[in-house]
Amino acid sequence: MADECDVLIIGAGPAGLMLGCWLARTGVKTRIIDRRASKITRGHADGVQCRTIEIFQSFGMADRIEKEGNELAEVVFYNPDQDGNLVPTSRIPDTEPNTSRFRHRVLNQGRIEDFLIDCMKTGGLTVERSISPLSLELSDSTTENHPVTVKVQHLIPVEEASDPSSGLYRSNILSDEEFNRSASKGGKIESIKAKYVVGCDGARSWTRNQLGFSLEGDSANIYWGVMDARPITDLPDVRVKVVLHSADSGSLLIVPREQNLVRFYIQMGTLQPGEKLDASAQSPEKIIESARKILAPYTLECPEVQWWSVYEIGQRLCKDVSFRNRVFLAGDAFHTHSPKGGQGMNVSMMDSYNLGWKLAACAKGIASPSILDTYGGERVEVARELIEFDHKVSRLFSGKPAVAESEGVSMEEFQALWIRMGKWTSGTAVKYDPSLVMTESTAAKTELAKNIIVGSHFESHMVVCYADAHAVQFADRLVADGRWRLIVFAGDLGRPNQLQRFNDFCSRLTNAHDSPIKKYTPPDADLNSVIEVLTLTSSPRKALSYSAFPELARPFVGRFRYPTYDQIFSDELSYLDGGGEAYSGYGVDPNGPGCVVIVRPDQHVADVLGFEGCVEKSGRFFDGFMMHV
Amino acid sequence: MADECDVLIIGAGPAGLMLGCWLARTGVKTRIIDRRASKITRGHADGVQCRTIEIFQSFGMADRIEKEGNELAEVVFYNPDQDGNLVPTSRIPDTEPNTSRFRHRVLNQGRIEDFLIDCMKTGGLTVERSISPLSLELSDSTTENHPVTVKVQHLIPVEEASDPSSGLYRSNILSDEEFNRSASKGGKIESIKAKYVVGCDGARSWTRNQLGFSLEGDSANIYWGVMDARPITDLPDVRVKVVLHSADSGSLLIVPREQNLVRFYIQMGTLQPGEKLDASAQSPEKIIESARKILAPYTLECPEVQWWSVYEIGQRLCKDVSFRNRVFLAGDAFHTHSPKGGQGMNVSMMDSYNLGWKLAACAKGIASPSILDTYGGERVEVARELIEFDHKVSRLFSGKPAVAESEGVSMEEFQALWIRMGKWTSGTAVKYDPSLVMTESTAAKTELAKNIIVGSHFESHMVVCYADAHAVQFADRLVADGRWRLIVFAGDLGRPNQLQRFNDFCSRLTNAHDSPIKKYTPPDADLNSVIEVLTLTSSPRKALSYSAFPELARPFVGRFRYPTYDQIFSDELSYLDGGGEAYSGYGVDPNGPGCVVIVRPDQHVADVLGFEGCVEKSGRFFDGFMMHV
Repeated sequence: MADECDVLIIGAGPAGLMLGCWLARTGVKTRIIDRRASKITRGHADGVQCRTIEIFQSFGMADRIEKEGNELAEVVFYNPDQDGNLVPTSRIPDTEPNTSRFRHRVLNQGRIEDFLIDCMKTGGLTVERSISPLSLELSDSTTENHPVTVKVQHLIPVEEASDPSSGLYRSNILSDEEFNRSASKGGKIESIKAKYVVGCDGARSWTRNQLGFSLEGDSANIYWGVMDARPITDLPDVRVKVVLHSADSGSLLIVPREQNLVRFYIQMGTLQPGEKLDASAQSPEKIIESARKILAPYTLECPEVQWWSVYEIGQRLCKDVSFRNRVFLAGDAFHTHSPKGGQGMNVSMMDSYNLGWKLAACAKGIASPSILDTYGGERVEVARELIEFDHKVSRLFSGKPAVAESEGVSMEEFQALWIRMGKWTSGTAVKYDPSLVMTESTAAKTELAKNIIVGSHFESHMVVCYADAHAVQFADRLVADGRWRLIVFAGDLGRPNQLQRFNDFCSRLTNAHDSPIKKYTPPDADLNSVIEVLTLTSSPRKALSYSAFPELARPFVGRFRYPTYDQIFSDELSYLDGGGEAYSGYGVDPNGPGCVVIVRPDQHVADVLGFEGCVEKSGRFFDGFMMHV
Repeated sequence: MADECDVLIIGAGPAGLMLGCWLARTGVKTRIIDRRASKITRGHADGVQCRTIEIFQSFGMADRIEKEGNELAEVVFYNPDQDGNLVPTSRIPDTEPNTSRFRHRVLNQGRIEDFLIDCMKTGGLTVERSISPLSLELSDSTTENHPVTVKVQHLIPVEEASDPSSGLYRSNILSDEEFNRSASKGGKIESIKAKYVVGCDGARSWTRNQLGFSLEGDSANIYWGVMDARPITDLPDVRVKVVLHSADSGSLLIVPREQNLVRFYIQMGTLQPGEKLDASAQSPEKIIESARKILAPYTLECPEVQWWSVYEIGQRLCKDVSFRNRVFLAGDAFHTHSPKGGQGMNVSMMDSYNLGWKLAACAKGIASPSILDTYGGERVEVARELIEFDHKVSRLFSGKPAVAESEGVSMEEFQALWIRMGKWTSGTAVKYDPSLVMTESTAAKTELAKNIIVGSHFESHMVVCYADAHAVQFADRLVADGRWRLIVFAGDLGRPNQLQRFNDFCSRLTNAHDSPIKKYTPPDADLNSVIEVLTLTSSPRKALSYSAFPELARPFVGRFRYPTYDQIFSDELSYLDGGGEAYSGYGVDPNGPGCVVIVRPDQHVADVLGFEGCVEKSGRFFDGFMMHV
């Protein structure tokens, strides 16, 4: 008898765990398996971009990254001067102002996985390790509830033979030997039947191979070393990010990490076309030697190397990420690139942040499976853009700089591209195209809210909570719990006319038969259980008593019908933490008619509407994919 | 054979645990015992003042209170209008601007104890429960290393008979029956020999009784109820602090807590002189009934009361807190008062924060036992001020307000006193008098640093870390690890003259025979192991390369002589987080000669000195109490 679950996740790296968080938090019956006997503890990815921390915040755990991760505050470019000597040529902030309420941080992938694992646990989900998939079958029957069958083998854990202080970069080429070693002893075989299966199993994805899909792309025939160490050096900038081109000895990237560790990326050499990188010939000593040449005349000692690896520059993409909307790929399983942009782990988690709420809604039967088409539609485009940037930057990074009159890469051009890429790789520039769960941007929508972009994520501004006077980041209220949100810019409720318009609007949204809240909230459920209304007034708190708001704005919930206190906000100056600039930040007229923003469970803005016609229009939008439970 | 330890702490409430944190973190051999079989989980104290959170930050755990505790952002005063109807008369911030980088928060005492327990654990110390002290003896021998002997009995835990939802306020009068119940079954008897014993055993302190000391003070013959509940009410301000006087039915205080709980303090009745409060006649229903009368015409329903109690208003103080500098009292053991100021737990933890570093230094033999005199000298004065404030405020709070022409308490006067008290009870106003470990304030010192007050704690301003460009709160660097600090305002190091003065000063401090760093740092220890130098330049980071600072400012430490990166800061605008106002905030001339601030391990400013003569003067200061190891 096969075990049944809603979703089977294959692979417990960042992409798989992020998906697990969504599914655990939304109460979807899930299993997550991994062939490895234990979690990684050192090395691998380490950059955590702004948007990723925003996502972590939606699960209530950004503080853990903020506490442990090292903030990247500055980038210094070192280039050869006219005489070929290394000099710092400019300093810029690593996170551009107004990018996000969070900053880029750097933290060991293993710790990031810990946070995700802890988050999953709060929803009752844990990783099952030492389980290797054997076969995958999708039934042709359209009536079967759990049409995907995955046969798996429980492995008898063998001691990991590899030295944790070394390891070749996982998202790249080279031997499969290490990867297969742990599968050498097989145990019990089990069949798992699932509604959906997601392959989060990395660059060598077993799931992708089962589907017959492949990664396509090319390699630059250049290889780099990567190493985590605590350096002793007279380079004065080893605790900020350093982007360094030497005149003749190659390039180097310094990324300062937690606990005074430093991640070094070091250009090492080139390969002939078709030549394979010889793993056995690599060593930390060779990496340090290359680094010394590049850094000269600055000195470098690394008494302890915590982790090291060597990888070849390359970019590869799999254009197919879904098989009949039943089996999906996420993360490295469909895109690989060079690690220096700090993107691999971030984009991978974003993939499954996009997929998670959609799968949850389908598994629970509250949304039509057709929304699953939008996963590939939205994420393959992001991966393609990423690879394009990475292709350009990594080749310029490995190029010899133009010094004085010599030919080579223009350092001005390189730096400008790096900054452009930085904006993009913060993760905040992602904008999804129109689809079943995303309307088109129009001039009329822009007129209502000039800085709210349909397709982009809903940005954060400081607002004041009506009930408790707390200054809060508005986007902190966009909790990842699977709910959609209507963000109501109520305008100035001190004006009787506007108050009347707002009350009338709330009344229609509560009672009209074509209102999405009326239609899709089960009769015995709390008023905010499917779609949560968040109200932001432009008038200050004292303009209207909290008790005077309609129930839709502050519903009574749970067994005892306790009041809610966290759905109404005002755009005013808080006592101690600023604020009062949200309407202008969002580009909404504080004295105007107000508007309503539809926000998806993944924080992306799906529509902007005026009060008039909002109930009908939003009703039709939700009718496109919501299903009655 | 008796077990030996450096310090025995009796009582694992907030005062005892805070002391445990200090001793565990400084590596002092400590035991902490408590007669109770388990930690409290509900009710009791809940207010956490700004200064307390600063202290928590010094142990690296302010974030836990910030995450879980409810911020108190606003106070609303409700008073009767001319017709006796309750109206909100004013709204003010609960934390005055510029009080602290932290805000008042409210969180269950049990959680606060959890944080302290976790902190102690990182130093290897855990609470031993179900142990009751039987006798205390202090040897007259002056040569004995562990002169205090405490005989204790291990209790066989009996099931706690008391209902956790009720309980009479622990820092007050009433029957000892409940308290003694858990001691009814005795087990093994053990002798513990200690260098020092600290009684943190609450208002009914066993230790105090052993010493023959007593609490003195009086009672107001007024009793109040206290209750934690999730209210359903049409009072619109139940998520901010409400200070409410009704015309005829008494007063009430609302303190919103975590998880939508609300702490209510409710005036209930008066007692005849000599009359004892009848505990058995109290109930949550009676408390709610009193609250309803006071709140009318506002409604109140409390479907679930999580905890409740009744207490009599009173203030009591024990003027003796030390017996021959071997046995000490801390917290409620020497001062009790009414709970509404949220002071009991805070002042108690401050007591042992003051005592902890002194005991640690004496136990390790690096400071003379005479510094222990300063504990009582500093803390009894604080307790006396606290009790004076509490006496005034609690009587005005319980008084009938003057409405229209009637006699009574002036609400203006009460509100003004409340605000004054608020500043004091933030804990940031504490200033210690001159002593062996505190110099006198002089005009010359004020001239050097106008806003740095000798005796007060070193305040925080945003500064930029030289090595990594992080914007950091300067006081975050005052970690509670037992080290003293010299904070060097280096001035403008872009000016060659000032750079020369600074380098000369560092050289003297490193090498001169009368330098306290030279004298008291063991020859084989890291340069920053006893006294840490923190440098703040008024010039920006780009004015001087990090590598150009003298080694004293950025010492090399540990087995591999790794560089430090967290001791040099600049007063400049950071990329994203403000800054550049520290010199003006501290009142130090950015273009002036600079100065040096001596900061104690508990963050209090012990002296302010100019560069000239600093080595000699600071040397003499440390000579007053430091001992060669």
